[in-house]
Amino acid sequence: MVNFKENEKLNTLNHSCAHLLAQAVMHIYPDAKLWVGPVVEEGFYYDIDLGNKTLTDEDIKKIESEMKKCAKSDKRIVRKEISKEEALDLFKNNPYKIDLINEMDDDEVISIYSQGDFTDLCRGPHVETTKLLKNFKLIKFSGAYYKGDSNNKMLQRIYGVCFPTKEELETHLNELEEAKERDHRKIAKDLEIYMLSDLVGKGLPLWLPNGYTIFRTLQNYITDKEIKHGYKHVHTPDLGNVELYKTSGHWDHYQEDMFPSMKLDDEEYVLRPMNCPHHMVIYSHKLHSYKDLPLRIAEVANDFRYEAAGAVKGIERPRAFTQNDSHIFCTKDQIESEFKGVLDLIIEVFNDFNIDITKQNFRLSLRDKNDTVKYYKDDDMWDTAESALRNVLDKLGVKYFEAEGEAAFYGPKLDILIKPAVGNEVAVPTIQLDFLLPKRFDLTYINKNGEKETPIVIHRAVLGSIERFLAFLLEETKGVLPFWVSANQINIIPVNNEFHLEYASKVLNELKDLGYRVVLDDRDEKLSYKMRESQTKKIPITLILGDKEKEAEEISYRLYGQKETTTLKMSDFIKYITDLENNKR
Amino acid sequence: MVNFKENEKLNTLNHSCAHLLAQAVMHIYPDAKLWVGPVVEEGFYYDIDLGNKTLTDEDIKKIESEMKKCAKSDKRIVRKEISKEEALDLFKNNPYKIDLINEMDDDEVISIYSQGDFTDLCRGPHVETTKLLKNFKLIKFSGAYYKGDSNNKMLQRIYGVCFPTKEELETHLNELEEAKERDHRKIAKDLEIYMLSDLVGKGLPLWLPNGYTIFRTLQNYITDKEIKHGYKHVHTPDLGNVELYKTSGHWDHYQEDMFPSMKLDDEEYVLRPMNCPHHMVIYSHKLHSYKDLPLRIAEVANDFRYEAAGAVKGIERPRAFTQNDSHIFCTKDQIESEFKGVLDLIIEVFNDFNIDITKQNFRLSLRDKNDTVKYYKDDDMWDTAESALRNVLDKLGVKYFEAEGEAAFYGPKLDILIKPAVGNEVAVPTIQLDFLLPKRFDLTYINKNGEKETPIVIHRAVLGSIERFLAFLLEETKGVLPFWVSANQINIIPVNNEFHLEYASKVLNELKDLGYRVVLDDRDEKLSYKMRESQTKKIPITLILGDKEKEAEEISYRLYGQKETTTLKMSDFIKYITDLENNKR
Repeated sequence: MVNFKENEKLNTLNHSCAHLLAQAVMHIYPDAKLWVGPVVEEGFYYDIDLGNKTLTDEDIKKIESEMKKCAKSDKRIVRKEISKEEALDLFKNNPYKIDLINEMDDDEVISIYSQGDFTDLCRGPHVETTKLLKNFKLIKFSGAYYKGDSNNKMLQRIYGVCFPTKEELETHLNELEEAKERDHRKIAKDLEIYMLSDLVGKGLPLWLPNGYTIFRTLQNYITDKEIKHGYKHVHTPDLGNVELYKTSGHWDHYQEDMFPSMKLDDEEYVLRPMNCPHHMVIYSHKLHSYKDLPLRIAEVANDFRYEAAGAVKGIERPRAFTQNDSHIFCTKDQIESEFKGVLDLIIEVFNDFNIDITKQNFRLSLRDKNDTVKYYKDDDMWDTAESALRNVLDKLGVKYFEAEGEAAFYGPKLDILIKPAVGNEVAVPTIQLDFLLPKRFDLTYINKNGEKETPIVIHRAVLGSIERFLAFLLEETKGVLPFWVSANQINIIPVNNEFHLEYASKVLNELKDLGYRVVLDDRDEKLSYKMRESQTKKIPITLILGDKEKEAEEISYRLYGQKETTTLKMSDFIKYITDLENNKR
Repeated sequence: MVNFKENEKLNTLNHSCAHLLAQAVMHIYPDAKLWVGPVVEEGFYYDIDLGNKTLTDEDIKKIESEMKKCAKSDKRIVRKEISKEEALDLFKNNPYKIDLINEMDDDEVISIYSQGDFTDLCRGPHVETTKLLKNFKLIKFSGAYYKGDSNNKMLQRIYGVCFPTKEELETHLNELEEAKERDHRKIAKDLEIYMLSDLVGKGLPLWLPNGYTIFRTLQNYITDKEIKHGYKHVHTPDLGNVELYKTSGHWDHYQEDMFPSMKLDDEEYVLRPMNCPHHMVIYSHKLHSYKDLPLRIAEVANDFRYEAAGAVKGIERPRAFTQNDSHIFCTKDQIESEFKGVLDLIIEVFNDFNIDITKQNFRLSLRDKNDTVKYYKDDDMWDTAESALRNVLDKLGVKYFEAEGEAAFYGPKLDILIKPAVGNEVAVPTIQLDFLLPKRFDLTYINKNGEKETPIVIHRAVLGSIERFLAFLLEETKGVLPFWVSANQINIIPVNNEFHLEYASKVLNELKDLGYRVVLDDRDEKLSYKMRESQTKKIPITLILGDKEKEAEEISYRLYGQKETTTLKMSDFIKYITDLENNKR
């Protein structure tokens, strides 16, 4: 999706279109008071005081049609610089503009832009004439507090976009439509995955039965997979003594993103924003020898971060979430093999979701060798680690780019950037080396010579947060999850309850006993209605059981989104779904 | 285990023995200052200021031997009442006693008890002569702050017990030994189940890999089992807005047991002590008709309660724990069948842990019909519910007792009291009816006549908290968990690494692929050493693989605690363990 703010040409065009919007509003509501009309990532908006008026869809249509007229009128857009006194006089009827003018530095040039009967206080730049603004669309509108403060007056905010050509506008509107359709919040609502409640709190999703089935499937899947890859899963508490975060350094550097602390007796506790400190403590539980390494501690762990109420977004950005996290404790010699091991795991896991992760964008963040201040001082360690990482990536044959000076001060990092169907690249799997944290916790192992040494820690995320991963998965698949992930895998519909319910129940129980997630639709509704609903609920396989199936002990099934029906012996159907389940298809 | 405080005879005897202890201490440490020597549940203790002295095992032996002498000396224990002035004079060298005397009411009788050269301020009563005190034992000793305040001086506290006969003392000491051996904290340490860390915090256990394997086994087991019984599992956040707990009533009645709240912007959040409010919100997610009921919402959920630092105990009483919880929403007509359904589930689940729950003590808490103030006003509802509960218990044929007036004000309750191997009865499974909470949350369903009605809620716990249940299980089994629960189910020992490791690895992988939790002991240690360690770790099955097994593709196994070895074809062994796993044996 285009970023209007960063694209210079679109920025100017949309800024001018905000003026066009304001002009049209003034024509229809002469008493309106304009505040500001900036360009943001998603287009432009204007905040307008319309008194007690709350806009309706009808109003927006009228405004659009007035904007069209103003655009057609082809007025030149003219800049003029004026003195502060002139400005204060010109906008004397608009307290918002007066406020803006008074907040300007004394030596700042004050400019106004005029088009026909409309003049606005503005730094510009603008396009030359209103004619260039005809390919616009008002996208949405809402109330917005003046200066974002809920103690202030509620203004009316109108969003829009503007493009040089009709074709570009249409492409963009289609993309918006697509994004809306893919929005995980909409899909999750349709599929009853989670709910939100102001009574429970902002950014705190409650997983409904369908959602938790998926959540648990993902949690058990990744746990089993990691155990197969030699990880040891632990389970550590959701909070910790503040001293723990002082030791790790989070208390000094990360406190703003944490929940406030809780005083208990003479101690202070805080909800954890990440799991590293707890895993360091797990390591310290006993003495280690080099023979114990690598030690791969993993957890599907609850974390809590303070996000502004306005920033939370469904399960993509909640305040409470669940991280698929691990910390690998290893020797310097093991960096390369552990890094490779993690990459192998990542490739295998994403393959199970039909994503070839090796085709994505790999970013290797390295230190800046010349920056002797920022980076942890151990050139030998950095060189060994950086070349180990490069080696693995080269052998794997993936395309990657090196981001020099982008590493954290405590070690190099790999991000795998995934381009989702909607929106910008996101770093889901990450591998971060850490030379420092084990030192802060005084972690050691006894090396081959009987001496104490500090292990290296590799932080790594495969799925990242289960919540965010599922949001991603829902948007990628439009809610059509793979068979093995779906909350309800099979929907059984008897053609006629009177004659076929018994057979349907038998099939239901047989499939349930095999561990499949099956539902039986025995409502007194028409077959066609039930079939449609099975599609709406995006259930991968629908069984239709009538006379023929009952007599031959067969089943007929239809896959999601397909029209043809296949009839199989029950045993063959079981083979078919076992294959789907086992091969994660 | 006997309760010394509540048993009148033992109470007096032990109180006198505390004096005996004090007398002996004064003989050995003439400068000692005595504070108080009360009887508590587990015996008596005396808190003594020994200056900078910290007691050692050697000191305790000396004190015991001096106590024996004082007991033998057969001094009469004589009571005398004195005036406050006399008391202040008598104890003028002991500031602790002076403090006690000054804190007494003016009209209180001050009494002292003397035996030979020793006199103590004391209310009594006491036994007649020190000769009666010879069957005692000092159990433990520790530091203890004066008045329990860490700002005060650290005194020395010595615990002991005293019995009328040598036999009773020995029985008690054996019981103590047994309790120590069964203490889940000791077993859990040996089996590496969890760890504690002051840096992470008090009462916040961290589950180590073995522990989490068991935890996860229990969690998946109970979740799967409940799903089979028609429960819908959800997953709700660990915290909630304080408004949620105001709605539920917990904020007014339960706040002391909760963690302190956290201010976020203009809201206040708090870690949840229980899950009921969240599940009420889940119910309110959509409109319900009578056709949707019963709706059984279940969760294995994180809860947090404030426990005093001194009250936390391993995983039996932590501050953060995990409840196997459910709330059943049903109509009045469904109370009986739902109550029966829950009991069936409880019986089935405990059977899987080899516990016949029907043989335990059932307590049915009912309202007091005459108490018209305490109980929620709906006689018809109470009558229906109470007789439904009785009916089910009668049909089931379990012994139960009715505790009239013991019900909560919002509904009747069933507790199943289990007598553990050590300690007093505990209520693990509970079924609590609730007529009120659904009203507080305005929950409704549409009945057959199209009218709104309030559902009844049944709170129920089967395992209770996973933590406490495992503590119980460890103490019952002395750590010898059933095959299906054990962290490591099978330990493979090659007779000789050089010749048998390859075959052992093949067997390992085959069993792992089948989903069993198997370890391979390939250390260069003697067979007998490895065999012993397999017992110490309480692994249910140990495989010993040598020439014979390798050649015949067989395995030889030994069960925990047994001496004989059985040899089987691999396929027969797999049948054997599949049966163990499936039948939960």
